[in-house]
Amino acid sequence: MEKKLNKRKGSQSLEFTNPPVILSTACVVGKKEGEGPLGAYFDQIEEDPMFGGKTWEDAESKMMFRTANLALKKAKLESKNIRYLVGGDLLGQLIATSFGVESLEIPLIGVYGACSTMGESLAVASVLVDGGYADRAMAITSSHFAGAEKQFRFPLAYGNQRPLAATWTVTGSGAVILGDETNTVLYSGHKVHVRAVTFGKIVDYGVKDSMNMGACMAPAASSVIAAHLRDFNLIPAYYDKIVTGDLGSVGKDILIDLMRQEGYDISKNHMDCGIEIYDPEVQDTHSGGSGCGCSAATLCGYLMNHLKEGKWKRILFVPTGALLSPVSFNEGQSVPGIAHAVVLEAV
Amino acid sequence: MEKKLNKRKGSQSLEFTNPPVILSTACVVGKKEGEGPLGAYFDQIEEDPMFGGKTWEDAESKMMFRTANLALKKAKLESKNIRYLVGGDLLGQLIATSFGVESLEIPLIGVYGACSTMGESLAVASVLVDGGYADRAMAITSSHFAGAEKQFRFPLAYGNQRPLAATWTVTGSGAVILGDETNTVLYSGHKVHVRAVTFGKIVDYGVKDSMNMGACMAPAASSVIAAHLRDFNLIPAYYDKIVTGDLGSVGKDILIDLMRQEGYDISKNHMDCGIEIYDPEVQDTHSGGSGCGCSAATLCGYLMNHLKEGKWKRILFVPTGALLSPVSFNEGQSVPGIAHAVVLEAV
Repeated sequence: MEKKLNKRKGSQSLEFTNPPVILSTACVVGKKEGEGPLGAYFDQIEEDPMFGGKTWEDAESKMMFRTANLALKKAKLESKNIRYLVGGDLLGQLIATSFGVESLEIPLIGVYGACSTMGESLAVASVLVDGGYADRAMAITSSHFAGAEKQFRFPLAYGNQRPLAATWTVTGSGAVILGDETNTVLYSGHKVHVRAVTFGKIVDYGVKDSMNMGACMAPAASSVIAAHLRDFNLIPAYYDKIVTGDLGSVGKDILIDLMRQEGYDISKNHMDCGIEIYDPEVQDTHSGGSGCGCSAATLCGYLMNHLKEGKWKRILFVPTGALLSPVSFNEGQSVPGIAHAVVLEAV
Repeated sequence: MEKKLNKRKGSQSLEFTNPPVILSTACVVGKKEGEGPLGAYFDQIEEDPMFGGKTWEDAESKMMFRTANLALKKAKLESKNIRYLVGGDLLGQLIATSFGVESLEIPLIGVYGACSTMGESLAVASVLVDGGYADRAMAITSSHFAGAEKQFRFPLAYGNQRPLAATWTVTGSGAVILGDETNTVLYSGHKVHVRAVTFGKIVDYGVKDSMNMGACMAPAASSVIAAHLRDFNLIPAYYDKIVTGDLGSVGKDILIDLMRQEGYDISKNHMDCGIEIYDPEVQDTHSGGSGCGCSAATLCGYLMNHLKEGKWKRILFVPTGALLSPVSFNEGQSVPGIAHAVVLEAV
């Protein structure tokens, strides 16, 4: 059997021999995200922050359900055509996902990587398709501003002030359907496939500020990007863009510094979904957007658009996660980070 | 490329062409579990419920860290020899896992399937090894009685009464190291490998009682066991034991009834880790044990012992999870279940 693992000693990376093709992507976001600079790229913008639900958690589940169905519709598939669903979210015990996808009745692999979830779910789904374990698999995630604030910081009604390093949790969901070579791609433009992945390690610099997630996650992003470049012996310019998830403007500066220490200059082609998704002047979002939905919706809208239309040939997509809970934070623990890297290539 | 997916229409199952071998297992439990009927099978029994830690969550992390290291030691490996770690736990945002394994510096795939986590992590790790994506992978999980009560029900200090349908969360952790055929197995007796897996769907019967997890999870267990038997065209007697995770005595009765409705009689060879792990007369545990650690520690101790020693040829290991959070429960949501099935075979 042909081994797909990268042979470099200590490698964290996999190169696919049967690169899974993206059959469709879908993204559904809230009003604020729709008003931002990437608004035109989202499939649906919902004015109602409750998405017709009864609670913030229910709202997020309904948003995820709608996103999954839209991805199916765009690929002209039904849920029974999807072999496995790989998904997760930020809420404790993944309740947005459990209640969001249960009626689809697809065998579920629940994953948690904080805001790196879109990278993790895409990577696991890619392994399943590349390895012949699934003819089609869906990767999905979401986050909701109000649910995340309630879960991690303060209920909205408390009205606390947000420091300038704080990010704004994106209300959004993104879903990607991957398929093997037996599938036909229906969208126009370039086919996009997943070429390789690098699974990240937890990196903990001891940062304890839940209002400065960028600083918590930048070391993990730097670790996985550097590992990826070393594993495949690449220079940063190999990628049209190296796209992190939600470092925000504070985290971006730290990442670029850390990458310099690793011997790589990514200042020219680095982009962060959290910085792109809002206009900080007009939208009062301080350091930028965050949440699983930030990189997921940006991938499924803006990034996919640029790949399909041939504006970019390939990108390294690196969603970034901060591994904290309200309990660990209140007990004085640090906020470790994790990030996973996925190579997306237009063919 | 040879396809590993089961070709039956609507199949949820995978049969491995290069079945991963279990290189080692390790289990560390608390005092109560050590005093139970399976006490002799656990690797370590810790008298201190804090495991030398500062908080219940920290205690669980320290228990998991110790379990991972013990599994490495038993296989004469170091953490750098493990390509990927697949793990998770019950706590919100998987903090027991994040803080438990971060110092091992193994690329992490965080998973959440409530108490089905040992099944999910074993299944994903098996895919990685079978497919040639990892020469070695570790699957790990844990639960801690005090941390789980605090997270899901009432803090211990509240002193609430437990109804008879309630289970007792196991303080325990289990770790399995899987390897491909290039590895040498060091333990004596039969080699044990992972032959196939069936990923489960979420099944929601609308049960809303967080004190009756068995009733919430039994439909999911029934669904995945029936799917497994159908996918491979097997009768229940093919397995020496069909071992669910933590249905307890209430859930066991429901499972056997549901399986009869599916056309299968599993009453003769069904076993539930939650029923085996405590003595309900002496230990006041009511319906039985529960938690990710329940099936994980039972697998890594008692079940592996029986397979290695040739008492059993093959078992279907089916950890069962209840997908609730304190938030979803307090908002009046039902408690859906999920279960994943893993075929373990002595060769």
